[in-house]
Amino acid sequence: MIVELISVGTEILLGNIVNTNAAYLAEQCANLGLSLYYQTVVGDNDERLAQTLETALMRSDIVIMSGGLGPTEDDLTKETAARILGLELKEDPQVKADIASFMKGRNIETITENNWKQALVPEGAEVIANPNGTAPGLILRKEDKAVVLLPGPPGELQPMFEQSIAPWLGDMQPEVIRSRMVKICGMGESYVADQIGDMIAAQTNPTIAPYAKEGEVHLRVTAKAADEAQAYALTDPVVEELQKRFGDAIYTTAEAETLEAAVVRMLKEQKLTIAAVESCTGGLLSAALVNVAGASAVMKEGFITYANEAKMELVGVKEETLKNHGAVSPQTAREMAVGGAKAARTDVSISVTGIAGPDGGTKEKPVGLVYIGCSVCGNVQVKEFRFLGSRDKIRQNSVVSALTLLRSCLLKEKVSQR
Amino acid sequence: MIVELISVGTEILLGNIVNTNAAYLAEQCANLGLSLYYQTVVGDNDERLAQTLETALMRSDIVIMSGGLGPTEDDLTKETAARILGLELKEDPQVKADIASFMKGRNIETITENNWKQALVPEGAEVIANPNGTAPGLILRKEDKAVVLLPGPPGELQPMFEQSIAPWLGDMQPEVIRSRMVKICGMGESYVADQIGDMIAAQTNPTIAPYAKEGEVHLRVTAKAADEAQAYALTDPVVEELQKRFGDAIYTTAEAETLEAAVVRMLKEQKLTIAAVESCTGGLLSAALVNVAGASAVMKEGFITYANEAKMELVGVKEETLKNHGAVSPQTAREMAVGGAKAARTDVSISVTGIAGPDGGTKEKPVGLVYIGCSVCGNVQVKEFRFLGSRDKIRQNSVVSALTLLRSCLLKEKVSQR
Repeated sequence: MIVELISVGTEILLGNIVNTNAAYLAEQCANLGLSLYYQTVVGDNDERLAQTLETALMRSDIVIMSGGLGPTEDDLTKETAARILGLELKEDPQVKADIASFMKGRNIETITENNWKQALVPEGAEVIANPNGTAPGLILRKEDKAVVLLPGPPGELQPMFEQSIAPWLGDMQPEVIRSRMVKICGMGESYVADQIGDMIAAQTNPTIAPYAKEGEVHLRVTAKAADEAQAYALTDPVVEELQKRFGDAIYTTAEAETLEAAVVRMLKEQKLTIAAVESCTGGLLSAALVNVAGASAVMKEGFITYANEAKMELVGVKEETLKNHGAVSPQTAREMAVGGAKAARTDVSISVTGIAGPDGGTKEKPVGLVYIGCSVCGNVQVKEFRFLGSRDKIRQNSVVSALTLLRSCLLKEKVSQR
Repeated sequence: MIVELISVGTEILLGNIVNTNAAYLAEQCANLGLSLYYQTVVGDNDERLAQTLETALMRSDIVIMSGGLGPTEDDLTKETAARILGLELKEDPQVKADIASFMKGRNIETITENNWKQALVPEGAEVIANPNGTAPGLILRKEDKAVVLLPGPPGELQPMFEQSIAPWLGDMQPEVIRSRMVKICGMGESYVADQIGDMIAAQTNPTIAPYAKEGEVHLRVTAKAADEAQAYALTDPVVEELQKRFGDAIYTTAEAETLEAAVVRMLKEQKLTIAAVESCTGGLLSAALVNVAGASAVMKEGFITYANEAKMELVGVKEETLKNHGAVSPQTAREMAVGGAKAARTDVSISVTGIAGPDGGTKEKPVGLVYIGCSVCGNVQVKEFRFLGSRDKIRQNSVVSALTLLRSCLLKEKVSQR
C-alpha cells in the first residue's frame, strides 16, 4: 500500500512554521509498514492544490492531506478534494451538532456563519469526530483510492490519527506490522552501525532501522507477519541479540521513554534523590528532569551557579579552586557536584561547567570544553567533553552527556549495592 | 521569479528528522521576494528524484535541492540532476584539493575512494565552496532554468545559502526586496490582526505579514523598490505607524533579537542584576536568559525550588504561606520573587509556580494554572495565568509570559527612574 502526504498551508509553504505534521505522519506510516515516496507542501490555492492531489492520486493508493479544514475562506482543502473526486458537499447534522457543542464547551457564544462551513461533508465520506477542535476528519473514497483529510493543528491531528486513522490503515494492510524500539545512549551512530553491520546486511524480516538523535541512537526492529504474536516472535530474538551486543548502553526498550525519564525511573527504583548544579547549561538539565511527569519524587531543588560567587555561596566551591584551576575545570565540576548534594541533602548530584561560547574560549580552554561531575552516594566521577557547534548545540549536548554519565554512575551504584 | 524546493533524503521522507531546511529556505526565499508555490520531499531514489525534478523545472524558474550530496552510494542528487539537465560529470581539481585540505584540518587521515565522488562537478556548473564540510554547493543551468544543489546538514546549508546563494538570487531579481521586523509580545495574534486590519486591507507595497509564535506576534514589513534606500523609504513609515499603534508592546525591531535577548539588553541598560526562582518551569526560564550570549553581566545565579522545602530553604517562603495558600498561589509566587532577590542579592527576581500537569490539578487549581511574580527594585507584581495544552506547552508558555511580565516591570521601573 503506497501512501502520500500533502501538507496544505501558506504558513508551512513560506517557512513560518516547521512541518512537524509531515514528520509525525511519515513516521507513523513507516511504523505501520506502509510505503511512502513523496511528501508535498502546497499553499491554500485551489488550482495548485488540485494539481498536487491529482498527481498524488496517480501514483499512490492513499493520500493523507493535513491542514486547510478551518472555517475561513482561505481553507479549501475539503472543497478542492471533493471537486477532484467528483463528490458533492452536504451539511451533516451530526457534525453541525458537534461544532455547536464544542463551542458551547469553550464558552464561545457567537458562532459565526463561517463555522457552519465546517459542517459540510462530501457525499459518502466517513466522518471522524474531532474532540479537540471544530473541523472533523474525513475519509473520501473513489474507486480503489482514498483521500484522508486531517485538521492542521498537531493537537487535533495526532490524537485523531492515533485513535481513528492508524487502526483504519492497519485494517487495510493484509499483514500486521509490529515493531520494538531499542534506545542506546553514549555511543556514536557509526559505532552502533558498525556493531550491527552483519545483522543489517542479512536482514529481510524483521528489519533494523537506526535513527540518530543528539547523543543517542534509536534502533527500530520491525516485522511483518500474519498476526501480532507471529510479528513479535520475529522481532524479539533480534531485540535480545541487540541487548547482548549493546548491554548497559541500552537505556530503554519502551517506545515512549526518554533518556531523562529512564534516569528518573532508575532514581525512583534505587530510592535516590537528586539535585543539579548548572553553570553553562543554565537550568536546561534540571528542566529536562523536571519535565518528566512525577519527577517531584526524586528532584526537590536545583542550583544555577552561573557566576563564580554563586558557585561558592550556593554549593561551597572553594575560592582557591576557582583561582587555581578556573571555573571550567575538573576540580570545580567535582566540588560543584559534591557541594550540590550537601546543600540539597540529596543522595545524588550532577554538575555542569563549561564554555558554551561564542566568546570566552582560549587556546587551553576552547569553546565547547565542558566538565560534568556526578556524585552518587559519595562516589564522584568527573568527565571532560569537547563539543562542537553553536552555543545552543553545546548546551544540548551537555544535557544529554550529563544524563548519560548520571545513568552509568547509577548502574555502578546498583551493582555495588548488590 | 518562481522558486521551488526539493528536499532529498530518506530520513526526512520517513519522518526520522523534521524538515527544518525547507522551513529555513522557504523563509529566506520569501524574504528575498521570490515566489514559492511547492515544496517536495523525496527519498534517495533516482527515478522518483528525476520525476520530481522534471515536474519542478516545468513550473518553476529555479529549483533548490538540498541533501543527497554526500560520499555514499545512496547520495545521488548531483548525478540525477546532471543527467536530467544533460550535463556530464568531471572531476574538479580545485574541489578535490578543498576536500583533501578539509579532511587534513579535521585530522582525518584515510580519505576513502568514496570521498572523491564529491569532487565530480557537472560541466559548466558554478561551484560554491563549503568551508563546513566536504560537499560543495553547485549551481547548474540549462537555458533559462537553474538548479541549485545544497548539502543537507543545516550547519553547512545555512552559511552557504547566506553567503553565496542569497546574493546570487538577489542579483537575479530586477528589483531589490528589503524588510523590517517588528516583534510584539503580550498580545494575541487575532488582537494584533484586528488593530492593523485597515493597513493590511490597503497594502500593496510594502506588505505586512504577521507570524504567530508562542506568546509573540512578529510583523514583517516588506517592500520592493529599485534600490535599498527606496525600499527602506517605503518600509520605515509603516514601521513608525506600527510603533504608534503598538507602543511598548513592541520589544524589538531588530531581526535577530529574541525576547530573552531584549530583556537581557534592558537589564544591562538599566544596570540591574537578576535571579530566577522556578518551580514548574524547572530551569527553563533561567536557561532562556543564560542562552543569551553575555548574560553573565546580569545573571549570576538561579534557584530551582521544585519542592516546598526548597521554596522555604532557598528563598525563604514562609511555611504558613504554603500551608494557608498552597505552593501554587499568588502569595507563594510573591514570596518566591522577593526571597529570590534577597537570597541572590539582585535588583530583580522573577518567580514561576504552577501546575504543569498531567496530574496534580484540582477543580479550584486546574492544570495550567500558573502564577508569575516579578520583583524589580522592591516593587512586586504577581500575575495569574491559565494555560492550555501539554505539560511542555504550559511550561513554554510560562517562560514567554514570565519574560513578558519582566519586560513590562522593567519598563515601569525605567519610567519611575526618570
